[in-house]
Amino acid sequence: IANINSTNMRLRLPLLCIILEVILIILFGTLVEYNDDTHAKLWNENRTDSATRNDHENEFYYRYPSFQDVHVMIFVGFGFLMTFLQRYGFSSVGFNFLIAAFSLQWATLMQGFFHGLHHGKIHVGVTSMINADFCTGSVLISFGAVLGKTSPVQLLVMAIFEVTLFAVNEFILLSILGVNDAGGSMTIHTFGAYFGLMVTRVLYRPNLDKSKHRNSSVYHSDLFAMIGTIYLWMFWPSFNSAITNYGDPQHRTAMNTYYSLAACTLATFAFSALVNPEGKLDMVHIQNAALAGGVAVGTAGEMMLTAFGSMIVGFLAGTISVLGYKYLTPVLESKLKIQDTCGIHNLHGMPGVLGAVVGAVTAALASPDVYGHGLQRVFADVETGKWNPQSRGGFQAISLAVTLGMALFGGLITGFILKLPIYGAPPDTHCFEDGLYWEVPGEEEGHQELYEVATPNEVEKLSS
Amino acid sequence: IANINSTNMRLRLPLLCIILEVILIILFGTLVEYNDDTHAKLWNENRTDSATRNDHENEFYYRYPSFQDVHVMIFVGFGFLMTFLQRYGFSSVGFNFLIAAFSLQWATLMQGFFHGLHHGKIHVGVTSMINADFCTGSVLISFGAVLGKTSPVQLLVMAIFEVTLFAVNEFILLSILGVNDAGGSMTIHTFGAYFGLMVTRVLYRPNLDKSKHRNSSVYHSDLFAMIGTIYLWMFWPSFNSAITNYGDPQHRTAMNTYYSLAACTLATFAFSALVNPEGKLDMVHIQNAALAGGVAVGTAGEMMLTAFGSMIVGFLAGTISVLGYKYLTPVLESKLKIQDTCGIHNLHGMPGVLGAVVGAVTAALASPDVYGHGLQRVFADVETGKWNPQSRGGFQAISLAVTLGMALFGGLITGFILKLPIYGAPPDTHCFEDGLYWEVPGEEEGHQELYEVATPNEVEKLSS
Amino acid sequence: IANINSTNMRLRLPLLCIILEVILIILFGTLVEYNDDTHAKLWNENRTDSATRNDHENEFYYRYPSFQDVHVMIFVGFGFLMTFLQRYGFSSVGFNFLIAAFSLQWATLMQGFFHGLHHGKIHVGVTSMINADFCTGSVLISFGAVLGKTSPVQLLVMAIFEVTLFAVNEFILLSILGVNDAGGSMTIHTFGAYFGLMVTRVLYRPNLDKSKHRNSSVYHSDLFAMIGTIYLWMFWPSFNSAITNYGDPQHRTAMNTYYSLAACTLATFAFSALVNPEGKLDMVHIQNAALAGGVAVGTAGEMMLTAFGSMIVGFLAGTISVLGYKYLTPVLESKLKIQDTCGIHNLHGMPGVLGAVVGAVTAALASPDVYGHGLQRVFADVETGKWNPQSRGGFQAISLAVTLGMALFGGLITGFILKLPIYGAPPDTHCFEDGLYWEVPGEEEGHQELYEVATPNEVEKLSS
Repeated sequence: IANINSTNMRLRLPLLCIILEVILIILFGTLVEYNDDTHAKLWNENRTDSATRNDHENEFYYRYPSFQDVHVMIFVGFGFLMTFLQRYGFSSVGFNFLIAAFSLQWATLMQGFFHGLHHGKIHVGVTSMINADFCTGSVLISFGAVLGKTSPVQLLVMAIFEVTLFAVNEFILLSILGVNDAGGSMTIHTFGAYFGLMVTRVLYRPNLDKSKHRNSSVYHSDLFAMIGTIYLWMFWPSFNSAITNYGDPQHRTAMNTYYSLAACTLATFAFSALVNPEGKLDMVHIQNAALAGGVAVGTAGEMMLTAFGSMIVGFLAGTISVLGYKYLTPVLESKLKIQDTCGIHNLHGMPGVLGAVVGAVTAALASPDVYGHGLQRVFADVETGKWNPQSRGGFQAISLAVTLGMALFGGLITGFILKLPIYGAPPDTHCFEDGLYWEVPGEEEGHQELYEVATPNEVEKLSS
Repeated sequence: IANINSTNMRLRLPLLCIILEVILIILFGTLVEYNDDTHAKLWNENRTDSATRNDHENEFYYRYPSFQDVHVMIFVGFGFLMTFLQRYGFSSVGFNFLIAAFSLQWATLMQGFFHGLHHGKIHVGVTSMINADFCTGSVLISFGAVLGKTSPVQLLVMAIFEVTLFAVNEFILLSILGVNDAGGSMTIHTFGAYFGLMVTRVLYRPNLDKSKHRNSSVYHSDLFAMIGTIYLWMFWPSFNSAITNYGDPQHRTAMNTYYSLAACTLATFAFSALVNPEGKLDMVHIQNAALAGGVAVGTAGEMMLTAFGSMIVGFLAGTISVLGYKYLTPVLESKLKIQDTCGIHNLHGMPGVLGAVVGAVTAALASPDVYGHGLQRVFADVETGKWNPQSRGGFQAISLAVTLGMALFGGLITGFILKLPIYGAPPDTHCFEDGLYWEVPGEEEGHQELYEVATPNEVEKLSS
Repeated sequence: IANINSTNMRLRLPLLCIILEVILIILFGTLVEYNDDTHAKLWNENRTDSATRNDHENEFYYRYPSFQDVHVMIFVGFGFLMTFLQRYGFSSVGFNFLIAAFSLQWATLMQGFFHGLHHGKIHVGVTSMINADFCTGSVLISFGAVLGKTSPVQLLVMAIFEVTLFAVNEFILLSILGVNDAGGSMTIHTFGAYFGLMVTRVLYRPNLDKSKHRNSSVYHSDLFAMIGTIYLWMFWPSFNSAITNYGDPQHRTAMNTYYSLAACTLATFAFSALVNPEGKLDMVHIQNAALAGGVAVGTAGEMMLTAFGSMIVGFLAGTISVLGYKYLTPVLESKLKIQDTCGIHNLHGMPGVLGAVVGAVTAALASPDVYGHGLQRVFADVETGKWNPQSRGGFQAISLAVTLGMALFGGLITGFILKLPIYGAPPDTHCFEDGLYWEVPGEEEGHQELYEVATPNEVEKLSS
């Protein structure tokens, strides 16, 4: 493929970053305005009550704590989860940082454009910030599939296309089909996973085993990855509930997610030990499969799933995720030529589909008996009188199909665009290696050298 | 004791995890219901006011940020605090994760059962989530005493019993004796510490020094542990205030804890340097003793302790904790055969008892002059007219005795149950070692080998 | 300078810590009282409404989540950001912990004294806790300049003086000149940076290159530092908005900061690659310059800067910060004898000044047309009728000059006080070294020895 020199980022990366940011600034200057809750004039015009109470009802106080938890998941959670590779920690955290910082700006524009302009302007506030972070999450899921095999320029280009298609798909689901997907089982996880899998399929590297020795963890890199895991796990209740309606839906979503994750964790430990000949636990499973419970209640979490239902879903999600890592991932690589570095199919793909199905079933079973006056808080079309649980369930199922179609098609096109030999992608021999794009400090190279020198033979010599 | 082969977890761990989770799911299915704030029907029936304001008064908005801080303490705080051991990071974070995920589900049932059923059902919401996390904290404290010397199966069995007894003790203290213990100086810290100390006493290993070389830290493991310490330290104000009454009690508790911890930190640095012949600071003290200030205001924090009082308590707590690590822990091991890996007696035991005493004294000194109409916000029995500060202080003191009794007795029984040779506990030669229960990545072992070979002698040879 | 033995902390550090804490406790006992929102009597006297609603309006619920984010920045953000040095992680996190715990107590007194006593008493609550953390941030910025070259005793002495002068400067700016500086571009960043730069100038070490080999990172220390960076980056919106007025100002400030940081990150990656001959990214830039966008909207963030304006400011800040690291820092050291370990001039100094200028311009351009009734929410003097945008801008500019003067003068004096040979400062040969003040675990020293022995020559010998 490319030769090493061509991975020099000196012109490509700065040029792309600066052009993108200048375009973003111009578009924000022409299109973006403060919304009613952030605009000094609008907020203070709309006061219907005494000054103090009104200020306390600013959406900031009811959304911002959720936003911060989501923000931590995006930047620390995803970033550190991917530091498990022994020589790719700088890139994992660093490129995650770069493409997230870009994506959230681009997503604000794309989502604002598709989800409703106000007199030709995009209105921003804490809810648009959460939505932008959600869209960014989808890009970072796809990043997991191509981790170690792409240049930062490629990743930014991928983000441009993925964010755009994410916004289109989200628009179809939420605005046209009117379905529920508060935690994004479909819009975020299924979309991000199958998009990324298709991209990595198109970018298939037959000679990737030349970098095989770097495609694994070391002791401390696994601990850094656990920082990512634990933060994702802890804040997933906030993620799924961040943009639900106020009151009982938000409260219920957080709790359902909490129980799903707890049950998922026990399933993960159980099956991780079970599939290992010596009964030893595998860090890959713990780091990833324990999170599948959050993905799998991303759609149904706001519904009356109950703690009981959530735990069953979480348990199933953890189980299929571990089994996927053990048995499916090797097959995907050998048979379908899908090289999925982080195993996003197991963490986001299958659990996302499971979440969509659970959401469809739970929606189809919804009834005024169970929800009372709360029905319209969850299913928006109750108010318009168009609500019908079975068709609601049907629309949920259709949404899954649409999402899969959009993701696979979008990933295909984007994959071919990323295949152009102009982005400075790493050669097969230098995948999973920070040194290509980063100044790496000396000592570790010292380490490396020493180890390369001190092969078992020499060690023997030494000790004799 | 056991031979190495018997540590294989392939059947034991999956079986236990799956059985436990299935039981939990069945019990949740039969016993657990959404509470008024999470149930779609109930929440929307109870609206007394316009829709918007009512939603804003959902307890979610006033408890969930505290819950998330507590959640971080349980999973990141405790988990990483215990990564200080050089070869036990996977187990520290991983087993912490497993037993916490189990305990919070089991605690929901046990606490729900003891603290009030609603028509035979347990009602859950964010407050029950906080309480379950609190109970989990107690189990994790005990985990600290047996760290490195137990199998995950043993830990789960310990959690089953400890959670149950925790709920009983909490019921006696809060519901029967009616005492104050919002931050759990007694219910969480004293109980968890003495329970764990008794367990480790019963599990005494006379030949533990065969694993002595692994029972210490390395440079980076100490830094990982500091992640745990700092998160515990920062969020302790949220911990102590998480379930106090709304308004001034919650606000005051957070602030008292903040000042106690700040003073405790200065005491910790002072005494850590003072007890070292070369005046060098010891990471063990900084990682642990600096937190004792949070433990010690766990009961009195919600009272009118004042910043002044909090700082005195924090200073004392830091002092006794450092002195405990330096002078008491070695004696406990040599004289009383208590092998306390993390020194929980110094971080949770003594400061917990101090906190109980401070709570009793502060309660006994409470007066309407100082608290005004706020008295009933802190001392619930004011409303029933049964309030009497001296007897209140007496009940607080009795609660400490009850807690100590329950913890020691419970730990004794549980210890003997855990002593059965069926759990795959590590042999004396392989304590504090991840490799027994985890797939450990290669390179580090490479390291190890190299170092074992390159003894000082050989290094000399090399350089000559 | 000093000889190694004189770095023994056994008496100096305990003595100073204990004396300081005793003084603090006495002063808190005589001067500090709960404020209206934390006092049991006062809060419950002031209830104007039904019990429940009133409690929900306690400032705790509107400030505490911001406080916790700020708290994380102070203890995790600053602490871990400075762990980039290979042998100074214990000191970075540990001394950060110590001086922050001291400073927040001392700052409560100093700020309380200058910013308004209530009948001779200092009233404390969550807002005073945020302000104390802010002041502490300033001390930690200065710590970055002298990192690795000072004893903990020196740092505590520095904190005593810096906190005091910070409070004086803040009083002049906010109370006398009445300017806006919610996020502290001037009071925190500019002040902390130039104070620290002056201190390190006075403490200039001509022979610091004797410790040069330790004044750099290793692979894992850079990853620990990224934990600090990412937390600072994520929570900066909370930092800048923590003490603004409720409602639209707080919401707007958080959002402006979010956009500024996103744009700043793209600029940082762009220029980091551009200034490197091989186009490789430099961790120093990513860790630091990506944060400059938060500093630079510290004054104007609460104004109607718009997302557009924020992004321009952020982009500029990232750019000057990277260029500063690359081209200015070496000159400062060689020409001006300013040894700035963390490059605080690039992260806090220049971006702070930029933020002050942006604030002055934005204030001068403010108009009732844009702000409507919200004008008085941002510019307090609107209510008193003294508001005039041009003079407001002028006062903002004067404030920058005052801050620079106070910082440089204060740093000069403090520097000379710190130069006294009584604090156990490290000798030139042992800077950037934990072993001087900490018990460092064995293995790493083993590492070190091995590496020192196995020079390239010997490695050659080995492999031949």
